[in-house]
Amino acid sequence: MKRKTFGPVTSQQVAQHAGVSQSAVSRTFTPGASISPATREKVLQSARELGYRPNALARSLNTARSRIVGVVISCFDNPFYPHVLEALGRELDALNYHLLLFVSDRDSNVDRIFDQIMQYRVDGIVLASGALSDALSEECHGAGIPVVLFNRTAESEMASSVNTDNRAAARQIAEFLLAGEHQRFACITGADNASVNQLRLDGFREALRARNIDVTVLAGQNDSEQTAQAARQLFSSGTPPDAVFAVNDHMALTVMDVARYEFGLRIPQDVSVVGYDDVGPAGWPSYALTSICQPVEVMVQRTIGLLMQQIDSAVMAPEQIVIPGTLVVRHSARRPRHGVVEENGQLLFRSEEVE
Amino acid sequence: MKRKTFGPVTSQQVAQHAGVSQSAVSRTFTPGASISPATREKVLQSARELGYRPNALARSLNTARSRIVGVVISCFDNPFYPHVLEALGRELDALNYHLLLFVSDRDSNVDRIFDQIMQYRVDGIVLASGALSDALSEECHGAGIPVVLFNRTAESEMASSVNTDNRAAARQIAEFLLAGEHQRFACITGADNASVNQLRLDGFREALRARNIDVTVLAGQNDSEQTAQAARQLFSSGTPPDAVFAVNDHMALTVMDVARYEFGLRIPQDVSVVGYDDVGPAGWPSYALTSICQPVEVMVQRTIGLLMQQIDSAVMAPEQIVIPGTLVVRHSARRPRHGVVEENGQLLFRSEEVE
Repeated sequence: MKRKTFGPVTSQQVAQHAGVSQSAVSRTFTPGASISPATREKVLQSARELGYRPNALARSLNTARSRIVGVVISCFDNPFYPHVLEALGRELDALNYHLLLFVSDRDSNVDRIFDQIMQYRVDGIVLASGALSDALSEECHGAGIPVVLFNRTAESEMASSVNTDNRAAARQIAEFLLAGEHQRFACITGADNASVNQLRLDGFREALRARNIDVTVLAGQNDSEQTAQAARQLFSSGTPPDAVFAVNDHMALTVMDVARYEFGLRIPQDVSVVGYDDVGPAGWPSYALTSICQPVEVMVQRTIGLLMQQIDSAVMAPEQIVIPGTLVVRHSARRPRHGVVEENGQLLFRSEEVE
Repeated sequence: MKRKTFGPVTSQQVAQHAGVSQSAVSRTFTPGASISPATREKVLQSARELGYRPNALARSLNTARSRIVGVVISCFDNPFYPHVLEALGRELDALNYHLLLFVSDRDSNVDRIFDQIMQYRVDGIVLASGALSDALSEECHGAGIPVVLFNRTAESEMASSVNTDNRAAARQIAEFLLAGEHQRFACITGADNASVNQLRLDGFREALRARNIDVTVLAGQNDSEQTAQAARQLFSSGTPPDAVFAVNDHMALTVMDVARYEFGLRIPQDVSVVGYDDVGPAGWPSYALTSICQPVEVMVQRTIGLLMQQIDSAVMAPEQIVIPGTLVVRHSARRPRHGVVEENGQLLFRSEEVE
């Protein structure tokens, strides 16, 4: 995606570039206005190339909002995302906004989703999909549509985001496993392009490196079969790990199943497994997974709060919201003698080393 | 919801009833037309009371469609529905339609959801929520908006629906458990108002009643805590069941956890558990749940096919599509000596008694 400038570009420049009338540009960006698909496509193409931001114009022409927020999501088999989607639906409904759902995957076309977003004149976007977040958030920002990344950090600082403190939380997992006297550490990572996975790996590795301890790192790619393969590789090695951190629960549950049912390992006596997200099944007694809790309702409230603020003010000041994650201690990992405390009926780990 | 007539009502009658101009009625049902919220509300109220169907009018005035399909869904913690939602999103996207999501629950207001559906002039509705399906489908039908019920049967014959053959599949579960020489049968039912739950219970009970066998029936209400309570009641009774059918997997997984972790029961040696849906976790080795497979992708294709047919033809001929469910045999229930066959790498049960 080439873009010559991010500076103020006029609708006249876009009209010239596209070879259409200025009125056609205006109509392309005016809710409800009549425009042929071919002309619209030309205008959008030129607007993209020139970095034209129709936002102020569109708002001055028509202050009526669509009251639609687009949500781009993938990974429906990871129960974290259905939970997020439900919370987004309720939060938007309470504000009398509506949720237009875009199901994305690695093969999805950014331009196509972007065109649909423009077509429905959504007031804002929540990007909860790793696959497209950077390219798509840049497109939307260029078009003057507020974007908040959910459980993703942005490569550029232009986009807003809401996350738990991935690095600190992963450091805390390492501290917890060290305090539990584990010796051999492995980490199963997620999709290559997801920044939060990298931050979680970094935090985990940093805390261990400070004690001169190495980590075996294998890619699970958020995919059950690839995660199972990675787990098989770990458990069949000459020096199998006694502590595995999977960067999300979805993969951690698979690691537990492979350890138990393919290798006959006892959890946590033979191997400890820790996840990230604290999804529903983490609390099921069959798994009782020790995991970092991401407070979905709070994160969703902050996400929608941020989005509404940007929609209302028409100012795109980016903001990065970071919420602490808490390590919920269940039975999938050996517990350290110190640092586990009870709060509101849950066991949590509070390391002194981590602020 | 009172409605005096389903016969042809004119926009003039609606205008008189609402005390507004005929133009106001026309504008209420014309996409993009200007109308004050108060007037719109009056018109919608009268249209509802009189059973006015603006469909043909709206289409003749404006053939442009919103290309939006509304999906009403609840129960995001039951993994069946996220799977359905993802499949609906992909199927609609392939047709260049968009998905407006309505998260409903038992407390949701039918009129409020209906007003939003009207406001966004959705072309059609998929109702995959038990809570509101009858009232809402009647409203939408009255307003000329095609509706397909997904995994719900309609009380009235006006709505279309797509389901597996709930009664026959549940009979097959009973045959399977009888062939496995089980003696004492229980059924955990779902939400009171969901017709599919009743059909599943009926089928299960019918097959057993034919052998003069009674079923203990307890309500799980699709709620983990209530299901756990029901399971506790079953397993702590003087004559605990050795076969439990939960009318969906979501509840069956909870029954398995209670049996194993609260009562120390072995599955399937002490008790067999069978579910319905064949959700992802049913295939996880920790559960290996024997369950009726609902073919989500096929059901979604049929649902969208039905909806598009009604949108395109502007004819609301209701159709009830029933797809056979197959009993996938895993390890959560004792297997009978006969009737279990392998197909495409899966074990299935084929009873001779069930056609």
